[in-house]
Amino acid sequence: MPDKIDPPHATGAAADTVKKHSQPHELVFHAGWFCPFVQRVWIALEEKGIEYEYREVNPYAKEPHFLAINPKGLVPALEHHNKALYESLVLLEYLDDAYPDDSPLRPSDPHEAGLVRLALQQISNVVVPAFYRYVQAQEPEKQKEGHEAFVAALRDVHKQWFVGGEAQWARGDRFGWVDAALGPWVARFSLLEKHRGFKAEDVGAEFAAWAKRILERPSVKSTSSLPENYESVYRRYFEDTAESEVAKATRKGEWLK
Amino acid sequence: MPDKIDPPHATGAAADTVKKHSQPHELVFHAGWFCPFVQRVWIALEEKGIEYEYREVNPYAKEPHFLAINPKGLVPALEHHNKALYESLVLLEYLDDAYPDDSPLRPSDPHEAGLVRLALQQISNVVVPAFYRYVQAQEPEKQKEGHEAFVAALRDVHKQWFVGGEAQWARGDRFGWVDAALGPWVARFSLLEKHRGFKAEDVGAEFAAWAKRILERPSVKSTSSLPENYESVYRRYFEDTAESEVAKATRKGEWLK
Repeated sequence: MPDKIDPPHATGAAADTVKKHSQPHELVFHAGWFCPFVQRVWIALEEKGIEYEYREVNPYAKEPHFLAINPKGLVPALEHHNKALYESLVLLEYLDDAYPDDSPLRPSDPHEAGLVRLALQQISNVVVPAFYRYVQAQEPEKQKEGHEAFVAALRDVHKQWFVGGEAQWARGDRFGWVDAALGPWVARFSLLEKHRGFKAEDVGAEFAAWAKRILERPSVKSTSSLPENYESVYRRYFEDTAESEVAKATRKGEWLK
Repeated sequence: MPDKIDPPHATGAAADTVKKHSQPHELVFHAGWFCPFVQRVWIALEEKGIEYEYREVNPYAKEPHFLAINPKGLVPALEHHNKALYESLVLLEYLDDAYPDDSPLRPSDPHEAGLVRLALQQISNVVVPAFYRYVQAQEPEKQKEGHEAFVAALRDVHKQWFVGGEAQWARGDRFGWVDAALGPWVARFSLLEKHRGFKAEDVGAEFAAWAKRILERPSVKSTSSLPENYESVYRRYFEDTAESEVAKATRKGEWLK
């Protein structure tokens, strides 16, 4: 049985952002208010100040128009002049390709862009799966393993890809792709804190200070719903009864293809 | 115990290409002659006509200089003005970012570039793992499953991402990223034919015609060693005794992170 999303729409600051972007536009953002992969792209749209139309999609409903856009039936997707694309990292590339003059989040230096792409691969392939394994772990021993693996994954990303020192953001003084790609999971740390005892400080003081800045960033705040609404969606993950593609893959020990 | 690579160097047409690129250069290509991920980048270098220095790396030896470049110790890697990057798809992006005027393989249209990035994700996440599962399958039933899954994965890529019709290459009349990213596995089809009875025609006539063009493409030919040398390296895969990272991950039912 498919998951129902309750509430079906964004709340809090995110609801205001949705309202601002409710008019028809040539750039349509097919989204789910609760989805961290969606929030990556949403943060990028807000950072770049691009006009767009927000459309809430229930990814479990698999509506024909949406399946025509993305055969996988997953959000986020963008439809621009009726041409569609999907996958959050492909969409981040697209937004900087299609709107190069609007506050690029991709570095202009080719080597720096390469380093950032490597960081995004590691976040997506190591940190994100570790997050879901941690969240869905039920037995105390598995939760302890989940905690250690998630903290280690974040420490590795911080050590390898954050420039550190006085820099405000992951790669320096400009908010960029690494911040946008990891930020949505930072916005869900409070759930981990409540249900699993995780703290950003477990990763390190410098990481925790960055995470605090992420939560205060306007693009993150304006794309975040009220904490109690995340709670109602993520309860099923913490009880390991969620039926999303991510949750099912995690339970099977696989990862989304 | 680490695998030994025998022979340790490229042979045939690839040996001539290595010889042409033996002089020190500011762009160093850290490579393994037998590795299909390396060949993706090698094809791109040859297509773009960029000058570079070829350096053979034994990825099992884990030399300190190479580990400093790529902590994962995997080829391919590029070192350009002493700055390093790795991961084949990140390197394809880099070459078009750093050498935009030399025959770009990435489409200039943002939407088309997005479609190609989606195609590359599918090739890397579905076709390539299916290749190794097929190659390493030992029992007849597993080999049959492997054959079907590999053919299905290629059919899906062909149906979804090839423009088809009269087009010479995957996305039209220009050789591009999809051709470069899938080509190295096409160059290993003859091994599958000999050891597992696979034929490109199993996927379809149009796909088989494209595969034939790939094998005749100068950038593919000039980066390919002699068939008997692939045979000696891949024998261990077909016997499922290979100890590369890819082989070990496939055996565990995982995939490289």
